[in-house]
Amino acid sequence: MTSNPFHPITGSVMPRFAGIATLMRLPLVGFDDPLFKDVDIGLVGVPWDGGTTNRPGARHGPRQVRDISTMVRNVNRASGLKPFSICNCADLGDTPVNPVDLMDSLARIETFFDKLQVAGIAPLSIGGDHLVSLPILRTLAKKYGPVGMVHFDAHTDTWDGYFGGFKYTHGTPFRRAIEEGVLDPKRTVQIGIRGALYNDAEDTWGQEQGIRVIDIEEFHQMGLPAVIAEARRVVGEGETYVSFDVDALDPVYAPGTGTPEIGGLTTLEAQRLVRGLQGLNLIGGDVVEVSPPFDPSGNTALVGATMAFEILCVLADSVSRRRGG
Amino acid sequence: MTSNPFHPITGSVMPRFAGIATLMRLPLVGFDDPLFKDVDIGLVGVPWDGGTTNRPGARHGPRQVRDISTMVRNVNRASGLKPFSICNCADLGDTPVNPVDLMDSLARIETFFDKLQVAGIAPLSIGGDHLVSLPILRTLAKKYGPVGMVHFDAHTDTWDGYFGGFKYTHGTPFRRAIEEGVLDPKRTVQIGIRGALYNDAEDTWGQEQGIRVIDIEEFHQMGLPAVIAEARRVVGEGETYVSFDVDALDPVYAPGTGTPEIGGLTTLEAQRLVRGLQGLNLIGGDVVEVSPPFDPSGNTALVGATMAFEILCVLADSVSRRRGG
Amino acid sequence: MTSNPFHPITGSVMPRFAGIATLMRLPLVGFDDPLFKDVDIGLVGVPWDGGTTNRPGARHGPRQVRDISTMVRNVNRASGLKPFSICNCADLGDTPVNPVDLMDSLARIETFFDKLQVAGIAPLSIGGDHLVSLPILRTLAKKYGPVGMVHFDAHTDTWDGYFGGFKYTHGTPFRRAIEEGVLDPKRTVQIGIRGALYNDAEDTWGQEQGIRVIDIEEFHQMGLPAVIAEARRVVGEGETYVSFDVDALDPVYAPGTGTPEIGGLTTLEAQRLVRGLQGLNLIGGDVVEVSPPFDPSGNTALVGATMAFEILCVLADSVSRRRGG
Amino acid sequence: MTSNPFHPITGSVMPRFAGIATLMRLPLVGFDDPLFKDVDIGLVGVPWDGGTTNRPGARHGPRQVRDISTMVRNVNRASGLKPFSICNCADLGDTPVNPVDLMDSLARIETFFDKLQVAGIAPLSIGGDHLVSLPILRTLAKKYGPVGMVHFDAHTDTWDGYFGGFKYTHGTPFRRAIEEGVLDPKRTVQIGIRGALYNDAEDTWGQEQGIRVIDIEEFHQMGLPAVIAEARRVVGEGETYVSFDVDALDPVYAPGTGTPEIGGLTTLEAQRLVRGLQGLNLIGGDVVEVSPPFDPSGNTALVGATMAFEILCVLADSVSRRRGG
Amino acid sequence: MTSNPFHPITGSVMPRFAGIATLMRLPLVGFDDPLFKDVDIGLVGVPWDGGTTNRPGARHGPRQVRDISTMVRNVNRASGLKPFSICNCADLGDTPVNPVDLMDSLARIETFFDKLQVAGIAPLSIGGDHLVSLPILRTLAKKYGPVGMVHFDAHTDTWDGYFGGFKYTHGTPFRRAIEEGVLDPKRTVQIGIRGALYNDAEDTWGQEQGIRVIDIEEFHQMGLPAVIAEARRVVGEGETYVSFDVDALDPVYAPGTGTPEIGGLTTLEAQRLVRGLQGLNLIGGDVVEVSPPFDPSGNTALVGATMAFEILCVLADSVSRRRGG
Amino acid sequence: MTSNPFHPITGSVMPRFAGIATLMRLPLVGFDDPLFKDVDIGLVGVPWDGGTTNRPGARHGPRQVRDISTMVRNVNRASGLKPFSICNCADLGDTPVNPVDLMDSLARIETFFDKLQVAGIAPLSIGGDHLVSLPILRTLAKKYGPVGMVHFDAHTDTWDGYFGGFKYTHGTPFRRAIEEGVLDPKRTVQIGIRGALYNDAEDTWGQEQGIRVIDIEEFHQMGLPAVIAEARRVVGEGETYVSFDVDALDPVYAPGTGTPEIGGLTTLEAQRLVRGLQGLNLIGGDVVEVSPPFDPSGNTALVGATMAFEILCVLADSVSRRRGG
Repeated sequence: MTSNPFHPITGSVMPRFAGIATLMRLPLVGFDDPLFKDVDIGLVGVPWDGGTTNRPGARHGPRQVRDISTMVRNVNRASGLKPFSICNCADLGDTPVNPVDLMDSLARIETFFDKLQVAGIAPLSIGGDHLVSLPILRTLAKKYGPVGMVHFDAHTDTWDGYFGGFKYTHGTPFRRAIEEGVLDPKRTVQIGIRGALYNDAEDTWGQEQGIRVIDIEEFHQMGLPAVIAEARRVVGEGETYVSFDVDALDPVYAPGTGTPEIGGLTTLEAQRLVRGLQGLNLIGGDVVEVSPPFDPSGNTALVGATMAFEILCVLADSVSRRRGG
Repeated sequence: MTSNPFHPITGSVMPRFAGIATLMRLPLVGFDDPLFKDVDIGLVGVPWDGGTTNRPGARHGPRQVRDISTMVRNVNRASGLKPFSICNCADLGDTPVNPVDLMDSLARIETFFDKLQVAGIAPLSIGGDHLVSLPILRTLAKKYGPVGMVHFDAHTDTWDGYFGGFKYTHGTPFRRAIEEGVLDPKRTVQIGIRGALYNDAEDTWGQEQGIRVIDIEEFHQMGLPAVIAEARRVVGEGETYVSFDVDALDPVYAPGTGTPEIGGLTTLEAQRLVRGLQGLNLIGGDVVEVSPPFDPSGNTALVGATMAFEILCVLADSVSRRRGG
Repeated sequence: MTSNPFHPITGSVMPRFAGIATLMRLPLVGFDDPLFKDVDIGLVGVPWDGGTTNRPGARHGPRQVRDISTMVRNVNRASGLKPFSICNCADLGDTPVNPVDLMDSLARIETFFDKLQVAGIAPLSIGGDHLVSLPILRTLAKKYGPVGMVHFDAHTDTWDGYFGGFKYTHGTPFRRAIEEGVLDPKRTVQIGIRGALYNDAEDTWGQEQGIRVIDIEEFHQMGLPAVIAEARRVVGEGETYVSFDVDALDPVYAPGTGTPEIGGLTTLEAQRLVRGLQGLNLIGGDVVEVSPPFDPSGNTALVGATMAFEILCVLADSVSRRRGG
Repeated sequence: MTSNPFHPITGSVMPRFAGIATLMRLPLVGFDDPLFKDVDIGLVGVPWDGGTTNRPGARHGPRQVRDISTMVRNVNRASGLKPFSICNCADLGDTPVNPVDLMDSLARIETFFDKLQVAGIAPLSIGGDHLVSLPILRTLAKKYGPVGMVHFDAHTDTWDGYFGGFKYTHGTPFRRAIEEGVLDPKRTVQIGIRGALYNDAEDTWGQEQGIRVIDIEEFHQMGLPAVIAEARRVVGEGETYVSFDVDALDPVYAPGTGTPEIGGLTTLEAQRLVRGLQGLNLIGGDVVEVSPPFDPSGNTALVGATMAFEILCVLADSVSRRRGG
Repeated sequence: MTSNPFHPITGSVMPRFAGIATLMRLPLVGFDDPLFKDVDIGLVGVPWDGGTTNRPGARHGPRQVRDISTMVRNVNRASGLKPFSICNCADLGDTPVNPVDLMDSLARIETFFDKLQVAGIAPLSIGGDHLVSLPILRTLAKKYGPVGMVHFDAHTDTWDGYFGGFKYTHGTPFRRAIEEGVLDPKRTVQIGIRGALYNDAEDTWGQEQGIRVIDIEEFHQMGLPAVIAEARRVVGEGETYVSFDVDALDPVYAPGTGTPEIGGLTTLEAQRLVRGLQGLNLIGGDVVEVSPPFDPSGNTALVGATMAFEILCVLADSVSRRRGG
Repeated sequence: MTSNPFHPITGSVMPRFAGIATLMRLPLVGFDDPLFKDVDIGLVGVPWDGGTTNRPGARHGPRQVRDISTMVRNVNRASGLKPFSICNCADLGDTPVNPVDLMDSLARIETFFDKLQVAGIAPLSIGGDHLVSLPILRTLAKKYGPVGMVHFDAHTDTWDGYFGGFKYTHGTPFRRAIEEGVLDPKRTVQIGIRGALYNDAEDTWGQEQGIRVIDIEEFHQMGLPAVIAEARRVVGEGETYVSFDVDALDPVYAPGTGTPEIGGLTTLEAQRLVRGLQGLNLIGGDVVEVSPPFDPSGNTALVGATMAFEILCVLADSVSRRRGG
């Protein structure tokens, strides 16, 4: 087992609380590392919250998720998937960011993910605020064209702007992505949406583009199996990205986030939703908006790490099958 | 939009974390303010916990709820209600209180709410411990006679006394209100009741008066729609008050409270219950027992602010319709 | 009421936050106290976490549970059971432990519980990590032979060892108990199991011995009544122990624990499960893995105290009926 | 050593975190316990904060101090004093209190301490807010007449009243005590006073009565030895009480308190000041205003427990010498 | 006393924890308020942390300082100064800011303070990160030309840039201010500087411009009176600004800050230093880098509020004397 | 600068909060890494608290210190020392440990450090509880014979045993080290000792062996320069180890520790003491007893990281000079 350089360090050799913290105890692989070319799925931190209009702190998300992710194990009990056995997974470190310049940060992040895209590595990112999804989608679209997306969130993140002319915030990434042609709204489904609106028309634009919004009320009316079926129908066979904002969850599960909204998903619902994506044509994913300073218990990071593991399971399955694995 | 002096400051002009904190970013209107006569619904803090026999701290509730309530927006996504568009709402500040004298505090609080009653302003209060509901009910009864009540709580708050002769605590307000003839027990429903009892007869008195108790077991057996229907049946067409003790919720949603009891409502259940009161003849409401010192994450205040917004939505709808609005 | 020396101090005489903290405000009874011989159920703290391979702190569990358990009252609202009226209950204090020696601690704990067993006192323990269940089971088996068990947990705790030859950790107690013949695997049911596995075969051994595992997925598929029925079927008429690891609950209910796993039981589900054990032939129980340093809100201890009360209710009912009470 | 029933449980028999928490691990002795008559110094909790005009929570002080006081050991390294060897010390439990009635609480507290006074037991109390010193002084004055006092505090606590006619708050105990003739202002010294004033005359009354105020500026100008000398000069040979409000300390040492003021004493300065009282004619003392809800780290309680031990050392020395011990 | 509209609400009318939180309970005065023209000193929040290269959260500083500043009283006990009696002070609210655009924020902040400058109001600001001092200095220089400064900090904040071309961060404000000619380096003194350096030359530039740096070692060697004398000598008779970064203090006093450095000033030292500035020609000041998310106890905000009061005292004295008051 | 593989990542390339956390942002070098042979000073985590008789959690120390140590910079402002420029420093990761077996852990730790000793690498360790110093001293003694030690602590850690026969706890390492001949008591000085004693003779043994104890009282009487001189006199020219228990500091600086004692050193005093060791013949050091679960603010880890940097400065100076650097 230890002969595989991509296998996580096991807790029966090194206690989980010990050792340098990498994502899920995977090897740390830099771009110039000989192992880089063999990586199938790259776990990446994006320590940046420059798009946050509310409570900051998501810049500290990757490090705390790394820390707690050393509690992740190997086999998904519910699905039986073993991501580390079917794909070469590695922690590729954090992307460069610039805490005092938004546009420079977006450029740095995109450049980083371009290297993964060129190397054929599927990205699984830990944010960072939700604006970090935009440069990742740009990168993926260079290869795949506009992609589909299963998006878990309390908010649609399709606002037009902020304070008039400011187009880039954590509330706008998917409007920008659609406008830029890197996200296909007709193959986009948003689950868990809730919370009061600024105005009636807040979500109109997105729905006009064809986004399928399943808000929390519809989620409960449909029931979980129907929601999964609907999400699968929307994204279909095409390349699909999974974006998980922890504020999709009720704040009791994820208090450490920028814009909490009560009345959200449970972690178990979220886990089942993600498991329900198995078999789709998945090409990457992210877990965003983990803001450790607002969570005295650290549970948000545990939830973020575990949801990342759930996404990894279905992503690895998809990568492996595409590869003929 | 900004020409309406009663409209909340929007987050797209002033970030939510900025500015003086008033309840839901509403204008602060004093009794001698020219705007006072135009207020329909007065949001009021009652910073007092002198009736608390257990963990104190609810005196700090109004300020922390004010702080976090700046995250509230305008449109209730589930119901479509827009309270700030159909009623003039304002933050009327805190009532006077006396932290070292219980009876003096009750008098000061009642005097304050009398002014609202005379001015025809419906009160929506943020406590404070649950004893603050008593002077509010007294005030309302001066206008309406004994009122009905939808009461969310883990406890019935109909104990007779404490330590023998002490009649006023946060466990006794509704017994006093019934005895004084300001609350109609036959039009009172209590939802979410649970937790161990001191003795078998603890709830007998209230039920003998005609209170309809739906404890947490019955709540789950009936299901949410039936509970709503039953609550509507109990209070009927008459004037009705809504009292929301945050300990109705499970402590994971509201750890910052005086007497937490495990096994409670979720916030989503509570939101739906309150939304189910739309169309009743509502005349006021409160959210009580938010005790910030016992909540390191601040989620209790977020829950309190959001539940207050839910009550405001149905209250504004009722006020607006009564007014022919 | 006060003439019964075994009755808890009531909150209407001494506020709940006042006085020396004993478990559920019961009298503190030492082995040489004249009352000892009359005790039916002994509440005991086991302040030890020497078997913990992950986050420590359960050694501080008993004291914090004692503190918060002064909020427990007398009558179980759901079941009507009044444990303090039907059994003589007492706080017997903490067992001796040795924080720097695992085997010595197990011996000290066993010796302590032997005294209860000899005196015919049913134990209800507050851990401590889960390894403390092993010496208790050893003691009970001296009287009853191998006992059955209803076990609530996120983990099966039937691993073989750790780091090769280390046989005693909080992940191995029930493998050891089965090997030693003090636990009957065919009369053991495990509820709430979840979380990723180290490897596919992790749970195989236990199931080969006959343990009935109801993991969280099966729990939700079966539904609560069927799970209760199945648990009752498994343990049958024989002597049965109840072991409640707080990590059976979702971490939002019990963040203060050594090995949290998201997606767990709610407290209400757990309360109903325990209530569903009424009428079984119960001989003791424990609540383990409460680790206060990892819970800034203290809710874990509240949950631990309340679950201990729920177990006490069904245990007292069983003890009382066995006694012909 | 263990044959002395008044000796604390040692950490080398029972780890400090284990066992029922009594003050300094002393035996718990009730009024009807045979040991009661042999007690020299009674450690008592006063779990009450009904006089608090600011942040509440001191009602929870005694229990948290009990918990952390199990870390106290036997010999004062600096002075060599061994209080448990020279006096019979015991935890007498908490006084009765009434959280919803101020005057009733003062009466209950006074009645409790009267029993100590009659039995010749010197009191060492853990508050509770500072108003609890008033009934204790009343009790002592029944025996000794007006007593002297060394008072550590950020505030003089000699305000006249509050809100007009309200005479009893945690800001007024020593004005009341002087007016009632139970405290001798000419033998009273106040150390550590600081913080902004409501008005110029705030402290005038006390100084007119003869109180010697050493505010924090004068404290640093005089230097510690001179302050000790001056304090000893003020109180002289007469019976003297020691009252230690933890807000005398800088808030970094005692954040968990009702009215913190920056720029205060260090714990080491406070320890030395108390040690400097050795040889005075001490008859009792208290440590007040420990409010656990405002201290996430628990350090305030540790400080409170250790300062209580320092006071105990000089008090025991005084009691022992008076007794001819 | 209450007839003065600029007098703070007193705690003997409204408890300190009650009421809308304004800075030091002063009246909230907008630019279009009739009272605006009579304001002498404007207290202003600057809720922005866009210049922060490390831990964010200072955007939340003004609100938490407002909250805790309701504990401030009227008379400086040490100096006898009564700022509210000698100057008209008001809370002017928060400046506009833009959380997603640094340059836009600087412009908005400058525009706000220009209005104060034109109206002849001396600013006392609560940050925000330290970059907010730059637009304030720009505004003041429009009136006074380059000003002098007494600067309390762990860092010199005279770095050239960040990541190459990024010139505006919370580490560069005073280099920019000197380059722009709004700050006179020869009349600038920096006190409390400490912490490891990036390189030897880190502070060279500033010292070449003539800044007088008194690092923590020199501070202790000189002693407090000599430091005050030296600071007074450096700034001389000219217009002088006071900038207080809470990281000048040891992190135990101010854990809630972006870049803590151990080994800092005590609050008492800081209070005395500020008091030592009485009589200088002071024209404004700020307290910056209070970051509530990193302070679970809230003490940082208490320290920030109290230091703002200390600065207010000497500023009001200066304003009053300039006015011939 | 970046061409040196041993140079820390600078904050002007990667923000301090970004990237994988290694100690002081140094390269992570394994035993089989080509760089290993060039390492001069090895920074090592020892994540173990199996010797803790009180509050556990030090097993989590290394990871939190790694996290916060990314705030460390390059040049010691006070001394001018640049450790990373004069020595090759690296993070060698964590030692193996066994959380459920004390003796096995000591063996694993010793084996790890033996590899450093053989490779000529000076160790600088982050604990872990204080028992981890024992295996390190054993390793060093294999090369140097019995070494001298400058020991900062609240406790002498020279107890004989625990519970009778248990010889290895965090209270006994230096008695064992002296008995084993790996520590020279005559060249050992202990600074900061304080707190109550179990009995009069508690420290006698150590002093009989020749240890020089400078308790906190003597520390303040002597003054810092004299203490430094005395410490230098005691250890002389011989090989000397530096052991820094964070409980040497007052608990306000280091609340996250197992056995806090009030009245301790300030961080500034500690920094100066360590700086005063420059020029001694230093061969290694450690910082121990950082227990993150007991520190909600994280300041203890910041203090631990900064003190480790201070020790590193004087150690690198010594290593460099020995090497003729």
